Amino acid sequence: MEVSIEYSAKLLNEANDIVLTTHIHPDGDALGSLLACYEYLSAQGKKVRMIIDDEVPRAFKFLSGSGKIEQPPITPVTPDLFVVLDASDLERVGKVSTVVKAPILNIDHHISNVKFADYWYIDSRAAATGEMIFKIFKQENANITGGMAEALFTAIATDCGFFRYANTSSDTLQFASELVALGAKPNVISEQLDTKPRVVVEMLPSVLKTLEIVECGQARQIASITLTKELASKLKDETEGFIDYPRNIDGVDIAIMFKEADTNNIRVSLRSKTADVSKLALSFGGGGHARAAGCTIAENLDRAKYLVVEAAKAQLFAGH
Amino acid sequence: MEVSIEYSAKLLNEANDIVLTTHIHPDGDALGSLLACYEYLSAQGKKVRMIIDDEVPRAFKFLSGSGKIEQPPITPVTPDLFVVLDASDLERVGKVSTVVKAPILNIDHHISNVKFADYWYIDSRAAATGEMIFKIFKQENANITGGMAEALFTAIATDCGFFRYANTSSDTLQFASELVALGAKPNVISEQLDTKPRVVVEMLPSVLKTLEIVECGQARQIASITLTKELASKLKDETEGFIDYPRNIDGVDIAIMFKEADTNNIRVSLRSKTADVSKLALSFGGGGHARAAGCTIAENLDRAKYLVVEAAKAQLFAGH
Repeated sequence: MEVSIEYSAKLLNEANDIVLTTHIHPDGDALGSLLACYEYLSAQGKKVRMIIDDEVPRAFKFLSGSGKIEQPPITPVTPDLFVVLDASDLERVGKVSTVVKAPILNIDHHISNVKFADYWYIDSRAAATGEMIFKIFKQENANITGGMAEALFTAIATDCGFFRYANTSSDTLQFASELVALGAKPNVISEQLDTKPRVVVEMLPSVLKTLEIVECGQARQIASITLTKELASKLKDETEGFIDYPRNIDGVDIAIMFKEADTNNIRVSLRSKTADVSKLALSFGGGGHARAAGCTIAENLDRAKYLVVEAAKAQLFAGH
Repeated sequence: MEVSIEYSAKLLNEANDIVLTTHIHPDGDALGSLLACYEYLSAQGKKVRMIIDDEVPRAFKFLSGSGKIEQPPITPVTPDLFVVLDASDLERVGKVSTVVKAPILNIDHHISNVKFADYWYIDSRAAATGEMIFKIFKQENANITGGMAEALFTAIATDCGFFRYANTSSDTLQFASELVALGAKPNVISEQLDTKPRVVVEMLPSVLKTLEIVECGQARQIASITLTKELASKLKDETEGFIDYPRNIDGVDIAIMFKEADTNNIRVSLRSKTADVSKLALSFGGGGHARAAGCTIAENLDRAKYLVVEAAKAQLFAGH
């Protein structure tokens, strides 16, 4: 059933043994929300565990408490409450869903949420699940420590592209302002998030050399970069932000990153300035938003590139 | 004499013929503050001119009213009030200071301000002059249009690295929140600011190939990139953000960009994570902040690189 902020807080308050989880490939919002909840609930003397079916990415290990995140155990876990953060369906939490047996409270901001939980608090207007967690803490007059503020600022800032994306609302910036007053340091957080292994900067020329630009009339262009399996492996999959290189070129409407996960398994990221790339992604069985979408294509790299670029050209020439 | 927000507002209100200016090499804070003031004063039926001794950079031409900015005329201009925005000394406004004859009101946030004006409103705690202009507007209950909100958001966001730098305060984010409520669109603004000419992305591999890394013990490194005159000219001097490539490498403490403005005229940008690079810059006759500083060296490129890297090594090995 759908629950309010107040009821979500009540469920958290009444449980004494809680497991927290979030989605695989955890991002800043997933981990920031998780760690802030962990500290809030632990401070109340509750038994709390964080379990994720994935590793914590290098970039987020600076967050206080990240070392306490566990991978799914083999034997079942039966807490009072199972809190699923920032995940829109249960498959997104991987094996954790089969190991933990308890009523589920789902707190999430994805519009695509399938309402799988026993209790769900969903707000698709929130830029990040971190905003919703912060609202719960404020509702409860929680003692928000510097560590919690840092986790929530990270959650919010990463999900709105450090206040650059269209989901950055007046509220988003207001919450960020309050979190800085509570001890979050934007410069410390951004320095941690922006740090890259040397190999990523050293390999960037090889990535940029794959830049291809297609003219589509009316000064509109499609620009793509391509990561072969070999290149992606040298980069250790640290490809965050690469799509901004084609995207930021003057005149480019649709930007595409092709990533060869494996032969006949091509991950395609799409960004646009005016075109609706969710349509493009959908036509290949993917999905997303109008300005940011993606799909996976079971063809070889050349064929996948041909198919997607032709479809993008058709869309631009059709004027959509 | 030093004046308050209220007195600054009074001076602006009482003048009917006003010239606004800002510093050469105008940035987002300079132009955003200028354009917001222009719209505010023009709406009151005053005679207002914007005069800058420089071109408006491509990246800021999207700001409403930027086409009305004039270059200094030959004949003297004698308004009631000459408002100098975001400039810490009069030399920074170039020829405008010799052409405009009127009492000067200086509104600025630089700690290095030399208090050259007849009236100065200086607040070095403000992340941007745009914050101070916004405070004046709020003080006056001004009708802040979407265009003014966009200009002020641009002013604030660009001077704090889109909320990433240490000067991003709780107030900075609060002002940004209010400006979004007044119509500023962070995604539209960031898209305009992030757009680069194709040649910049295409030349980036040549820039990154100049990356040099020096080990300095205790896993601390100095990383530099070098723009020869030829490379800088191909990039049309659009080198914004390049220093972040060496800076963001894991383990790098001091990042340096060498830019050959001319033979025996090397501009050096310095960034650091823990070292105080303002000392380094000062030892070469430059200046700046602990984490971001710069200097110009009258030596050839190789000699300038040798001198600065040796000084940086000495500083890191000395443990400062």
